[in-house]
Amino acid sequence: MGNMRELLVGVDIGGTKTAVLLTTRDGQVLSETVVPTLSQSPEQVVYSVCHAVAIVLNGAGGTVSDVAAIGAGVPGLVERDAGIVRMAANLNLEHYPLGATLSAEFHTPVLIENDVRAATVGIYHHLNQTEPLRHLAYLSVGTGISAGMVLNGQLYRGTNGMAGEIGHVVVDPDGILCSCGQRGCLETIVAGPAIARHAANYFAQPVTASEVYEAAVRGSAAAAEIVRHVSTLLARTIQWLVMAYDVEKVVIGGGVANSGDAFLQPILSHFAHLRVHSPLTQMMLPDSKIMLLPVGFNAGTWGALHLARQAAQLHV
Amino acid sequence: MGNMRELLVGVDIGGTKTAVLLTTRDGQVLSETVVPTLSQSPEQVVYSVCHAVAIVLNGAGGTVSDVAAIGAGVPGLVERDAGIVRMAANLNLEHYPLGATLSAEFHTPVLIENDVRAATVGIYHHLNQTEPLRHLAYLSVGTGISAGMVLNGQLYRGTNGMAGEIGHVVVDPDGILCSCGQRGCLETIVAGPAIARHAANYFAQPVTASEVYEAAVRGSAAAAEIVRHVSTLLARTIQWLVMAYDVEKVVIGGGVANSGDAFLQPILSHFAHLRVHSPLTQMMLPDSKIMLLPVGFNAGTWGALHLARQAAQLHV
Repeated sequence: MGNMRELLVGVDIGGTKTAVLLTTRDGQVLSETVVPTLSQSPEQVVYSVCHAVAIVLNGAGGTVSDVAAIGAGVPGLVERDAGIVRMAANLNLEHYPLGATLSAEFHTPVLIENDVRAATVGIYHHLNQTEPLRHLAYLSVGTGISAGMVLNGQLYRGTNGMAGEIGHVVVDPDGILCSCGQRGCLETIVAGPAIARHAANYFAQPVTASEVYEAAVRGSAAAAEIVRHVSTLLARTIQWLVMAYDVEKVVIGGGVANSGDAFLQPILSHFAHLRVHSPLTQMMLPDSKIMLLPVGFNAGTWGALHLARQAAQLHV
Repeated sequence: MGNMRELLVGVDIGGTKTAVLLTTRDGQVLSETVVPTLSQSPEQVVYSVCHAVAIVLNGAGGTVSDVAAIGAGVPGLVERDAGIVRMAANLNLEHYPLGATLSAEFHTPVLIENDVRAATVGIYHHLNQTEPLRHLAYLSVGTGISAGMVLNGQLYRGTNGMAGEIGHVVVDPDGILCSCGQRGCLETIVAGPAIARHAANYFAQPVTASEVYEAAVRGSAAAAEIVRHVSTLLARTIQWLVMAYDVEKVVIGGGVANSGDAFLQPILSHFAHLRVHSPLTQMMLPDSKIMLLPVGFNAGTWGALHLARQAAQLHV
């Protein structure tokens, strides 16, 4: 297996699946895998990661002693420097020392980060290969909605690692109760479950966000109405991000964005409309600034891999 | 006058007044002045600055050859590195090389910046003296509304120097036409002129934003209704800033914020209400995070002075 400590591991721990990427230090892919995430207890989450890492090492003929560092993205609030998951509801983790636990398990440095922020790092490095970028925002629209930012080439986390948690800005004070305790948060209106819930008022059977987008494309007036409403709010959210951060690119991903053009086009139409009379919008919101996550690019594991590289450099 | 090139000059060029602060390199105040801004032509703007700088130098018994550098805040879009004012409607400047012009006039390095961003730098250094800060947002609510950010101890400008221009996020697509060409921008609803215009629907004679706040405190139901509406939107704006940037402090200033407690309390009540049921809001929006610009502190000229210090260091 060549020199010792020459491998990097990127782990994306999702609520249902854990994806792992194994590369050399210079980023050559050796092996990848996806396993179900067991999340009944912290021990199960750790087991899922160990299991998946064992698979990729096996696949590349390596062992734990070849690993220089591990990076891991976690869907929750992460105290990066302490390696603690403060809260990850989908993984049943609360104030859990995931970094130290994995580090003890693998005898190697481990850096953990919120999953959307990790993905942002992955996207930044991916796009930066072909087009130098300084400032980037990644908007994830899935079960929830949140953003990650790379500013001046560095992940921006803020005081509590909460920078970009815009899903919990109140949009409708009379809206429904959000898991955070407020009413009418952005993510109670435009994330996947919100779209599905909204659709339940119009359709006889339960439909997913993706089915709503498909129905809108096929000509369903009810679906088109929902898409219009959601797209207007997403466009406003993107305008907020652009005016707040003045980034060069806004990349959109997450489960809802997987609807592709059916998802993106109504948002772009919104900006086209704003641009007609506004030089400011022409400058700040050209179509070229907004893009979907490249199909097939696994931002989560690649982002985690960059965290691993960072961890390896910190522990030279 | 002591050693040569030992003085720093901070200039805050406003639409009606130009304020200048003269200090030693270590920030000891020597002299200050305020003159009317003449803004019929670029030459008049430059004349106003020269006039004011001559007054402060005179006041301290110094001459132009004592000045190490000048910093200047300008109410408009500034290309800092090029020293160009791309657009400053209130000063009738468009693509004007203000930096080079002042630099030639005074034979000294000049750094120009947008006025709100300059003020943000001033506030950051002011607060940082007593309480170490990494991340700060300054929200200016005056004729317009915009924000400045210091992130990781550095002014964050974004790609075009537009980071924080949140006054032009569309809030009401059916709202009134904004100077930027869009309809229903945030600043068409919550900035000073918007409040006055809103009040015109309720009051027999024209009233200013400050009079609306005073009337609300005195018990006018109509004024209280306007204040409630404006405060709700400002609270949402602050929540956006906090969730987007996860800053340690949000400082609010500008003409409308000069109404002091009458301005701030309705915003704080809004957050108190959100905190009741939301641990997230308790964490992210405690009263201690939100403050008004300290009374008597001239953020604009002090910020410009820090720019001057930066310019002097760049040209050692």
